[in-house]
Amino acid sequence: MLKKDISEAVIKRLPKYYRYLTDMEKLGVLKVSSKELSERMGLNASQIRQDFNCFGGFGQQGYGYNVKTLREQMANILGLLNSYRAVLVGAGNIGRAIINYAGFKESGFNIIAAFDMNEEMIGSNINGVEVYNVSQLQDYILKNQIDIAIIATPKAKAQQIADTVMDAGIKSIWNFATVDLKLKEDVCVENVHLSDSLNVLLYKTKSSLQK
Amino acid sequence: MLKKDISEAVIKRLPKYYRYLTDMEKLGVLKVSSKELSERMGLNASQIRQDFNCFGGFGQQGYGYNVKTLREQMANILGLLNSYRAVLVGAGNIGRAIINYAGFKESGFNIIAAFDMNEEMIGSNINGVEVYNVSQLQDYILKNQIDIAIIATPKAKAQQIADTVMDAGIKSIWNFATVDLKLKEDVCVENVHLSDSLNVLLYKTKSSLQK
Repeated sequence: MLKKDISEAVIKRLPKYYRYLTDMEKLGVLKVSSKELSERMGLNASQIRQDFNCFGGFGQQGYGYNVKTLREQMANILGLLNSYRAVLVGAGNIGRAIINYAGFKESGFNIIAAFDMNEEMIGSNINGVEVYNVSQLQDYILKNQIDIAIIATPKAKAQQIADTVMDAGIKSIWNFATVDLKLKEDVCVENVHLSDSLNVLLYKTKSSLQK
Repeated sequence: MLKKDISEAVIKRLPKYYRYLTDMEKLGVLKVSSKELSERMGLNASQIRQDFNCFGGFGQQGYGYNVKTLREQMANILGLLNSYRAVLVGAGNIGRAIINYAGFKESGFNIIAAFDMNEEMIGSNINGVEVYNVSQLQDYILKNQIDIAIIATPKAKAQQIADTVMDAGIKSIWNFATVDLKLKEDVCVENVHLSDSLNVLLYKTKSSLQK
């Protein structure tokens, strides 16, 4: 496997390749060259070839890539053919939106339980997902073969929840709390920091209004 | 102004500086050296000094930075002292979560109206924000001095909405639809692509489970 050497920048582009290839397949496109792909995606063609080479290349460039095959290979690399079991902690606005978001179903990503500390939430059901007391979190993870914990709690609670799920053996965290979690070395994280994203937008907005 | 030369990578770190400085100020920390800041943030000290130099440096390193002053300067650079008026298009799960999200109030960021095409949503009120028919979007922007459009529609509608708001003079888009928008040259965008983020997480999860 070559995977250990793949840089974060390449990894961040993989979902974009997958997305464009999926759209092209739906449109009935059969073959695509790295040049065409680069024009559609706004990347340069040599970067695309370099990225693909990290995974062994995917066939002869001269003839173009087979769109369907390439999409399937990309799905396999991304782990989308696998099935993952996730729990969500923090069933507030963001947490509920994540549970209700339809876009995840294709990815084999299943949220099977939610946890909250708010008595009014506990025992309720969000789009088929039951909300449990957060005091049951560790026990639930230990008994139910959970792969991923989604943290959508207020910032002040996030580290404590991260510690709890890591102690229960979780190796993968999707973090929506705007805080940089301290993680064990073998635990991976992907952050969605909405306030940071807004602040970047406001910076760009201010700069663009000053032009 | 030095701002034109600031790279995207530096811009992406600014909210993180602001966040750490805000937390430190709340904890009563008065002074911080670039070394201490680097340890807290997991960045290296020379990078921090380089980043700060993009904006003129913020005082003498040897004595450490004044936390309160530095936080204020960072807020000013980010444009958080300004006030912005935004409209949101697409009042589904994600759209409603954005409206309800409490973390934005400090940033001078005000969502003043929402738009949807769903008859059942139109006329409703989400946390004080009224939902209008999307057919009124362009007219509303023209009449109400709107700075920012938030796009939280399904993927297939997003480009059309982007075209509509740009035609009405919007220069800044916060895009939650998982699609790369085609934008006019002077329009800035910040993307929150949840499916891409999930796919990156699944890739990392798969890789970490294989170790």
